[in-house]
Amino acid sequence: MHCQAVFDWGNLLYKCKYCGWPLTIEYEVLEHSSKRFLALIKGAKRLWDFYPILPIDNLHNIVTLGEGGTPLISATTRLTKHRFLYFKLESHNPTGSFKDRPISVIVTFAKENNISCVVAASSGNTGVSVAAYSAAGGLEAHIFLPGSCSPEKIALMQSYGAIVRKVEGTFSDAVRGLQQQKIQCINATTTLVNPLGLEGNKTIAYELAGALSKIDYIFIPIGAGPLLVGLYKGFNDLVKFGINTQVPHLVGVQPEGCAPIAEAFSLGLDHVEPWTKPVLTCAEGIADPLVGYEDDGTIALRCVRETEGFIVTVTDEEILSAMRALARFAGVLAEPAGAASFAGFLKVQEKVPRDSRVVCIITGSGLKGGWKWLN
Amino acid sequence: MHCQAVFDWGNLLYKCKYCGWPLTIEYEVLEHSSKRFLALIKGAKRLWDFYPILPIDNLHNIVTLGEGGTPLISATTRLTKHRFLYFKLESHNPTGSFKDRPISVIVTFAKENNISCVVAASSGNTGVSVAAYSAAGGLEAHIFLPGSCSPEKIALMQSYGAIVRKVEGTFSDAVRGLQQQKIQCINATTTLVNPLGLEGNKTIAYELAGALSKIDYIFIPIGAGPLLVGLYKGFNDLVKFGINTQVPHLVGVQPEGCAPIAEAFSLGLDHVEPWTKPVLTCAEGIADPLVGYEDDGTIALRCVRETEGFIVTVTDEEILSAMRALARFAGVLAEPAGAASFAGFLKVQEKVPRDSRVVCIITGSGLKGGWKWLN
Repeated sequence: MHCQAVFDWGNLLYKCKYCGWPLTIEYEVLEHSSKRFLALIKGAKRLWDFYPILPIDNLHNIVTLGEGGTPLISATTRLTKHRFLYFKLESHNPTGSFKDRPISVIVTFAKENNISCVVAASSGNTGVSVAAYSAAGGLEAHIFLPGSCSPEKIALMQSYGAIVRKVEGTFSDAVRGLQQQKIQCINATTTLVNPLGLEGNKTIAYELAGALSKIDYIFIPIGAGPLLVGLYKGFNDLVKFGINTQVPHLVGVQPEGCAPIAEAFSLGLDHVEPWTKPVLTCAEGIADPLVGYEDDGTIALRCVRETEGFIVTVTDEEILSAMRALARFAGVLAEPAGAASFAGFLKVQEKVPRDSRVVCIITGSGLKGGWKWLN
Repeated sequence: MHCQAVFDWGNLLYKCKYCGWPLTIEYEVLEHSSKRFLALIKGAKRLWDFYPILPIDNLHNIVTLGEGGTPLISATTRLTKHRFLYFKLESHNPTGSFKDRPISVIVTFAKENNISCVVAASSGNTGVSVAAYSAAGGLEAHIFLPGSCSPEKIALMQSYGAIVRKVEGTFSDAVRGLQQQKIQCINATTTLVNPLGLEGNKTIAYELAGALSKIDYIFIPIGAGPLLVGLYKGFNDLVKFGINTQVPHLVGVQPEGCAPIAEAFSLGLDHVEPWTKPVLTCAEGIADPLVGYEDDGTIALRCVRETEGFIVTVTDEEILSAMRALARFAGVLAEPAGAASFAGFLKVQEKVPRDSRVVCIITGSGLKGGWKWLN
């Protein structure tokens, strides 16, 4: 992505050997086969139905709990006057967040390669997902959490049998805590550290393309931004195969209390700086200061610019108001980070053309204790 | 079902005018059309893909959050030596339980018939589902709960904006509390009071038939038994249309601390008596003493006998042990009532032929506070 070096597929590499940047995985299987790709997209019920474009050799190794194939629902007029607004309910994945997609891919890869343990730094959702999929696949799970992680999510991880360690500080501190341990496991942290993660996230683009013939804007809650980068990758595949003519405008949404990518965007910088101010937000899932891996943010920033998207920041009040509206007028109970996309849309809706097709990704469920923010 | 009276489809009837028994809905649409039925079953991604055999006239009235189309996963060897054991993860429905199926059908019917409010007695899951679907459809929701309902589930109902009333006593007392109010709403209580409920539950049979060519036993947690009766109805449709040759043996699982149907079964009675002993179980979702609607239990009992199934009781210890095993060795976090099916299977597995195909229905998720039973 940076120095353009290419490596053969084999052992998992976390970063480019030459320039140190995150890697992405490319496939040769489906080249010159738009028809087959289109059939996949139209017929897929779940993530692993996309197996020809996922990093797997033997389908017996799949570790699945039924992730992907999440519902896409229309917004009612009680929520917005916008005519074509949709919610992609990633909150309806098996453990209640979109993280089940990258984690299913990573744990499957681990199983296929006889790796017996998984480690991850997590603000909560990744940890729950890693714990569940490791249990399903028979792997050991070690999770590093920041102090802000909710007790409900910690208890969930432990219910699945994961080993949990709390690290003083932010999510970035948890990432550093993990690095210092040098545990010999596959790293499932869902920054851009592991290129397998994007392979899970990109499938959301395929599903959206299968359901809607045209999408103009996608609003995405972002911390380090792997979901946004995954959507970028997925939509670029769709363009490459001639299924879509262009990538939708990707709109990142960050909480005001932790918004390093938004800051770089608004200052017109070409790279993201770590967030060194205090982290203050109810949206723990996207409270990522990017300290030590700010390049991940820069990659997300580039994807936003390349698609002529933008970044919007939202206050906690705006997030909780969007969360309440989703529950009361759509029957969708998101956690704060999961509702941030809709909060971002509400903030800028006057600027979004009235006849444009808009999707908000609802990234995480409020069932896992997130409902407390409404009570 | 009892006096064999037939009524025209039109206004919703709750009970037979003549004999007072629960009603079921029959369709003429698909008659003599096995091929179309088979195509439906093979292609369906979600509950409403079965619309030709669901009680709806105008598809615009559908109130959906993406229910149905739940995952079916194989048990690993770490859970059982049985070769063909599957889990149908109804816990992965939008609000975390199979109740989203009947409630989506009932709320849709209400919308189609300009009914603006929904009332239900619930041990918890039905209430959460009614609250969510009423919010999605723009209806008012009133929920009557027994004292045992978990605070997490009550908070969830309130998050969606439902009006919640606690009734001293058991689930049967909540049912009576509701009846005394005479609220002019559609009744979404998921005993057999509303025949629309079975229309949602029967779709699980269709999905199972689409996924597995042969099923010998289905283990089902039962309170009043509408899920079991719904499966019975669905599989009978499959036999009628020539898709399946027989209905699987339906096995009801009840907690020892509240087991009126099990008691009638083991005593060889032809009808179920209400449970007048104290209700003592962690499986609140199936703790139904059937006081005042014991006929519902009798209907479930008949379905069990007709399919040459049986009923098994499990202790709280057995339920929690099954729940723990599911979390640790399958990555499936069920609530106690949701794990009861697997507990029942474990209890009798020596008697289940080794090469038979067995499905356990995991009816509800542990994400909504149920995880507390493991900590």
